Amino acid sequence: MNTGAFGEDDLIKTIRNRFKGAHPRLLKGPGDDTSVTAPRPGTVLLATTDILIEGTHFKRRYTAAYLLGKKALSVSLSDIAAMGGGGGANFYLVSIGLPRRTDKKFILDLYRGITARAREFGAVLAGGNTALSDRLIVSTTLFAEMPARNVIYRTGARPGDTIYVTGTPGDSALGLRVLKRDGAGAIKKSAFRRPVSRHLDPSPRVKAGMALSSAHLANSMIDISDGLLLDLERLTRESGVGAVVDSTKLPLSTEFKRYRKGLKRPSEAIKLALTGGEDYELLFTAPERAAKRIAAISKRLRLRITPIGYITAKPRSVTVMGTGPKPLNFTRRGFSHF
Amino acid sequence: MNTGAFGEDDLIKTIRNRFKGAHPRLLKGPGDDTSVTAPRPGTVLLATTDILIEGTHFKRRYTAAYLLGKKALSVSLSDIAAMGGGGGANFYLVSIGLPRRTDKKFILDLYRGITARAREFGAVLAGGNTALSDRLIVSTTLFAEMPARNVIYRTGARPGDTIYVTGTPGDSALGLRVLKRDGAGAIKKSAFRRPVSRHLDPSPRVKAGMALSSAHLANSMIDISDGLLLDLERLTRESGVGAVVDSTKLPLSTEFKRYRKGLKRPSEAIKLALTGGEDYELLFTAPERAAKRIAAISKRLRLRITPIGYITAKPRSVTVMGTGPKPLNFTRRGFSHF
Repeated sequence: MNTGAFGEDDLIKTIRNRFKGAHPRLLKGPGDDTSVTAPRPGTVLLATTDILIEGTHFKRRYTAAYLLGKKALSVSLSDIAAMGGGGGANFYLVSIGLPRRTDKKFILDLYRGITARAREFGAVLAGGNTALSDRLIVSTTLFAEMPARNVIYRTGARPGDTIYVTGTPGDSALGLRVLKRDGAGAIKKSAFRRPVSRHLDPSPRVKAGMALSSAHLANSMIDISDGLLLDLERLTRESGVGAVVDSTKLPLSTEFKRYRKGLKRPSEAIKLALTGGEDYELLFTAPERAAKRIAAISKRLRLRITPIGYITAKPRSVTVMGTGPKPLNFTRRGFSHF
Repeated sequence: MNTGAFGEDDLIKTIRNRFKGAHPRLLKGPGDDTSVTAPRPGTVLLATTDILIEGTHFKRRYTAAYLLGKKALSVSLSDIAAMGGGGGANFYLVSIGLPRRTDKKFILDLYRGITARAREFGAVLAGGNTALSDRLIVSTTLFAEMPARNVIYRTGARPGDTIYVTGTPGDSALGLRVLKRDGAGAIKKSAFRRPVSRHLDPSPRVKAGMALSSAHLANSMIDISDGLLLDLERLTRESGVGAVVDSTKLPLSTEFKRYRKGLKRPSEAIKLALTGGEDYELLFTAPERAAKRIAAISKRLRLRITPIGYITAKPRSVTVMGTGPKPLNFTRRGFSHF
C-alpha cells in the first residue's frame, strides 16, 4: 500500500487518530487551520524549528523511519534543552514532504518515532501538514514554556568561566563514517554500534539543561549540532568573549579511542571530535564556584559533564591546545552546509 | 556570488542584520538555540507551520524570489486569518533549504519578500535555520496571540447557517494555468495578470478574519487552500453537518468570466473555481441574522464576501447545485497531494 491508495485527508486522519495527544492547555490540536494553546501565566515561550532533508541530513539507505522520526524531534528538543527548557508544556508541529510512492508503513513508523520521543519529554502533537516532495523532508517546530528567569542564553559567558561539555563528542561523526562504510546493519552488529546509535538516535540533553537552568548554574549554553568548535565560536561571539580548549581533556568514548588507535595520525581523531557535528550534546560555561554542584548533577543523571577549557576576555579568539605548547590548527571548524 | 562564497554563518548573520525585527515581547530573536517570547496574559496562542517545496508548490522558472518569500508567509498568515487571529503579537520562524549554488541575491530577495509581507501584518522574525537541499524549500512557522473567546474553529457550523466566501475563488488556479502556458512574464503583460498575481502573490484575509472574530459573527471558518469544495467538506466534517452550494452564486472575477467564455464546456470553469486550490480566501458560516453586519464588513474592507449556500443537518453530504434540478458531479473534489 502506498500513499496514493489512501489520499491526503485519510493520511492526516490516520495520523490524527493514531498519534493524537491530550493536554489540558492544548485547546485545539490537529484538525483545524492552526493549533490553539493556552500559555501559562508567568512563563516565556521558547520556539525552534528544524528541518531534516533526505540527501542532506540522512540517507534512506541507512535510516529507519522510526529512528528518523525520533531524530527529527530530538534535534528540536536539543535546542530547547540548550536554553534550559523542556520542563513546562511542550507542543510541536510536524510538516512532512513525502515522495509519491512512500509506503504507508514508512509514514506510520516515522510518526511512531516522533511520538515515542515526544512522549519521553511530555511533548504533545499540536498540528502540521503533509505535502508531496521528490525527497523526504521532515520539518519540526517545537515550542516550550519555561520561567523567564531560568532561560540560559548564548550571551552570558564571562572571562574565567569554565567550559563544559556533556557526553562524548565525536561519536556521532564516527558513527556516520561507520554507517557510510557498513550500511544500516551497523547499528546492530558493528563493534561501533554505540557511536552509530548516537548518530541515528541522539539523546537530547533536556534533563541536564533543566538541572542547570533551574539551579542557575550555567552562564551560557548552546547545543553542539555543527561541531563543538564551531558552536563554541558561536557562543563566544554572542558573549563577546574568547575561549581556550584543552583538547587533552576531551571526553572520548571507548569506541572513539579504539578508532583513534587504528589511525595513522591520531590527531585526526581529535579534529573529528571537535568538528564532527550532530552530537546534540550541551556546551556551557559556568563560574568556578559551580563546579561541585555540576559534578553532582553529572553523577545524578549518570551523564558525563566534563570541563574542557575556559573563557577568556579576548573576543573572537578560540584556541585549541594539544599536548605541545602551540595551538592546534584547524582547516575546518565544523559542519557548515555551504 | 553564491552561498559557497559566504558560508552558513555569514548567511545567517546577513539575514539577522538585514531582517531583524523588534518587539517588546520578543526577548530573543535569531541568534540563539530558540526564540524567546513573552506571552500576553489572557490570550491563547495560534501556531501553524507550512512548507513550500520547489517542484511541488512552485517552479523556479516562473517564481521570483521576492514573491516566493511573500507567499511563504502569506500561506501561514492565511491559516491564522482562518481562526480570526492576526491582531495580537505575531512571531515567525523560517527554515530554508537551499541548493548549493543559490545566488546571494536570490536569498536576500526571498527574505525581503518574507519580511515585507510580515511587516504588513505586524509579524516579527524570531528565528529559523538554513540547510543544503537539492530543491529549494521554504518552511514557515507563525505564532499569533488572540483572545480565547474570539477564536473561530472549523467545528461551529450549524444547520441553517449561510456559507460565505471572500474574494473570487478560482483565480489562483486560472493564474497557474496561464503561468504554465506563458511563463513568468504573464504577471506583467497577460490579459490574465490579475489571476496570475492572485496565484503568485495571494493576500491573506487577516483583516476580514479579525473583523468576523472580534464581532463574533462567524460560527465556523477555514481558509481555502486546497479548493473550495474540499475545504468545505473538511469544515462540515469537523462540524458534523452537511452543505448545499449554489454554484450560480459563486463570485467570479472578470478575468475568470472571460476565461469561461472561451471554453467549449463552460461548466469546466465552475469546476475549476470550486476545486482549483490555492485561493487563500476565507470560507465561513454564519447565522442569517449576521447577514447585514457581514455586508457592512465587506463594504468597509472593499472585499467581496458572498453567500454561496447553506449548512444542512446531513453529515458528510456536500452538494453543489447548478442551473438545473440535479446536483453537479465532481470527479475531483480539490487539490490533494497524493
